[in-house]
Amino acid sequence: MSMRLGLARMPKKGEEYDVVIVGGGPAGLSAAIYTSRFLLSTLVVAEQIGGQLNLTDYVDDYPGLKKIQASALIRSFKAHAAMFNPRILELVRVTKIEPDNSKPYPRYRVRGTRGLDVYAKTVIMAVGSKRRKLGVPGEREFAGRGVSYCSVCDAPFFRGSKAVAVVGGGDAAFEGALMLSGYAQKVYLIHRRNQFRAKPFFVEEAKKRDNIEFVLNSIVIEIKGDKKVRSVVVKNKVTGEVKELEVDGVFIEIGFEPPKEWFQEIGLETDEYGYIKVDEWMRTNLPGVFAAGDCTSMWRGFRQVVTASAMGAVAAYSAYNYLAERGLYEPKPLALKKAGLSH
Amino acid sequence: MSMRLGLARMPKKGEEYDVVIVGGGPAGLSAAIYTSRFLLSTLVVAEQIGGQLNLTDYVDDYPGLKKIQASALIRSFKAHAAMFNPRILELVRVTKIEPDNSKPYPRYRVRGTRGLDVYAKTVIMAVGSKRRKLGVPGEREFAGRGVSYCSVCDAPFFRGSKAVAVVGGGDAAFEGALMLSGYAQKVYLIHRRNQFRAKPFFVEEAKKRDNIEFVLNSIVIEIKGDKKVRSVVVKNKVTGEVKELEVDGVFIEIGFEPPKEWFQEIGLETDEYGYIKVDEWMRTNLPGVFAAGDCTSMWRGFRQVVTASAMGAVAAYSAYNYLAERGLYEPKPLALKKAGLSH
Repeated sequence: MSMRLGLARMPKKGEEYDVVIVGGGPAGLSAAIYTSRFLLSTLVVAEQIGGQLNLTDYVDDYPGLKKIQASALIRSFKAHAAMFNPRILELVRVTKIEPDNSKPYPRYRVRGTRGLDVYAKTVIMAVGSKRRKLGVPGEREFAGRGVSYCSVCDAPFFRGSKAVAVVGGGDAAFEGALMLSGYAQKVYLIHRRNQFRAKPFFVEEAKKRDNIEFVLNSIVIEIKGDKKVRSVVVKNKVTGEVKELEVDGVFIEIGFEPPKEWFQEIGLETDEYGYIKVDEWMRTNLPGVFAAGDCTSMWRGFRQVVTASAMGAVAAYSAYNYLAERGLYEPKPLALKKAGLSH
Repeated sequence: MSMRLGLARMPKKGEEYDVVIVGGGPAGLSAAIYTSRFLLSTLVVAEQIGGQLNLTDYVDDYPGLKKIQASALIRSFKAHAAMFNPRILELVRVTKIEPDNSKPYPRYRVRGTRGLDVYAKTVIMAVGSKRRKLGVPGEREFAGRGVSYCSVCDAPFFRGSKAVAVVGGGDAAFEGALMLSGYAQKVYLIHRRNQFRAKPFFVEEAKKRDNIEFVLNSIVIEIKGDKKVRSVVVKNKVTGEVKELEVDGVFIEIGFEPPKEWFQEIGLETDEYGYIKVDEWMRTNLPGVFAAGDCTSMWRGFRQVVTASAMGAVAAYSAYNYLAERGLYEPKPLALKKAGLSH
């Protein structure tokens, strides 16, 4: 139980929570807001607060907030959750979740780094899903400064742009290219093959657009810029030709990598893509374990802050119902000052 | 096409939109944000901007916004939508939605008050669902000032309160009473019968709570107060006894009234409660017609701003995909000033 780095004090070994939320992105923090409002004792364990938002610069599609810096949005979510006093552990990674049968009611033992070892009557998995990276020079440097991993989220920021590039050959790449073709004057669609995984209608639509240019059999070898992206360097795998395309943005749409093996180790059923299977109430196949956000099978292909937040809220509601149904819901009045009845 | 009252100019008769959104609450406005960002030509027709939010005073459960006046939240949603230039008609009610076969592609004719008569390639139904009212003196007067129609939303505002009342005998009433029992010192559960529709475990839980008092066979006849609720007057239907209970809040949880007949007239399938049946992508049984928010079968029993907003976003995404799949997606670059590439 290290105290170095000024990190939050770890919970005592064996401590029990009504709900342990694994993940600190919009889904996890939204779940924490709701479980805490339901007066469930709540522990949030996050490797990194903010999740995918950390890869983003601005957000202009979270309803109600016109345009906000992703970092400010993260802080707002965290501050909002903090208002209801869940316990939030940062920089701790959950490694093991196992059923525990030492009590008359079912619960889970949750272990992780920094000595984390607690019990949870319910668990909400909100671990997100890492976007696949190109792994080329400039990619990390310009993330959020022209390099984006979500065309549908960020296209409007490129309104009037001279040119942008989309990398990939699946639905997300084509969906992005089509949307961007309405915002930017020119869209390069860069793909390492000359065949596409995308749905045929997307491909047909893209071919019809005058301002979409296909750059096929090609891989990105570098992203260049100054304060922001200025160009992308592309190599043709067949001819060996290297060319530099002037662009304001590079949209990398080459898929996600959910930690499928870890989910399966826990005993969670996953879909064919490796996401945790959930029903509309965010229930997984394991009793008392719920999931929310990008790590789930729900709304695959459309991952937004607002969809993750809603799933988090619903997972919280389901956890609350799960406990209530079993007579395990004992709201613990918060030791907070009276909020006032001024409303 | 009346111009009185300074209302927005009506669209020309026969004008066609990629999407017509019916309703101006969080679901409808969120849908409008997303369809406009997808560069679909969008018309929002709203009887009243804000929907159910107009019955609320403060909101503290929309993730990212700690505590905000409902009216300010409505304005934020509207301003956010306006940023992307959908056309928004207020104080217009849609009365008829019928298939139109005069074009090589399917579309709908949408008619309404004030001469509304337009065509829609897709429709998003986001008309909400009216909460059932008691219809007693004081109810309307104190709405948002102690009278609430959503316990799960508003319970935390009553932290430390001496006493509150919940009216109803179903799941929502019991769920509310249980949650409130953690916030308020005393909770009266007022029900007109001595039997409950609520799930047995809710009833059992409530009976176990020391601070929940059942007031059965009783109806509310008046809600009294000054600037806010101070008491509720209750009449026992069996004994005729009238008593006044001092309370800071009255939570009316007696159900919803979705406009089922109207939905069925349009040809929309409804569930047993009268809500529009949707799948997880917000598709209804009618091609090109999507639905979002409180009017849908999804997440019945848990109606939140964030869930409605997410459904609106998903419905917009589905409308966009529906059009793209049929080769009907032609993004119309917006005639807006360049947003700048400063990000």
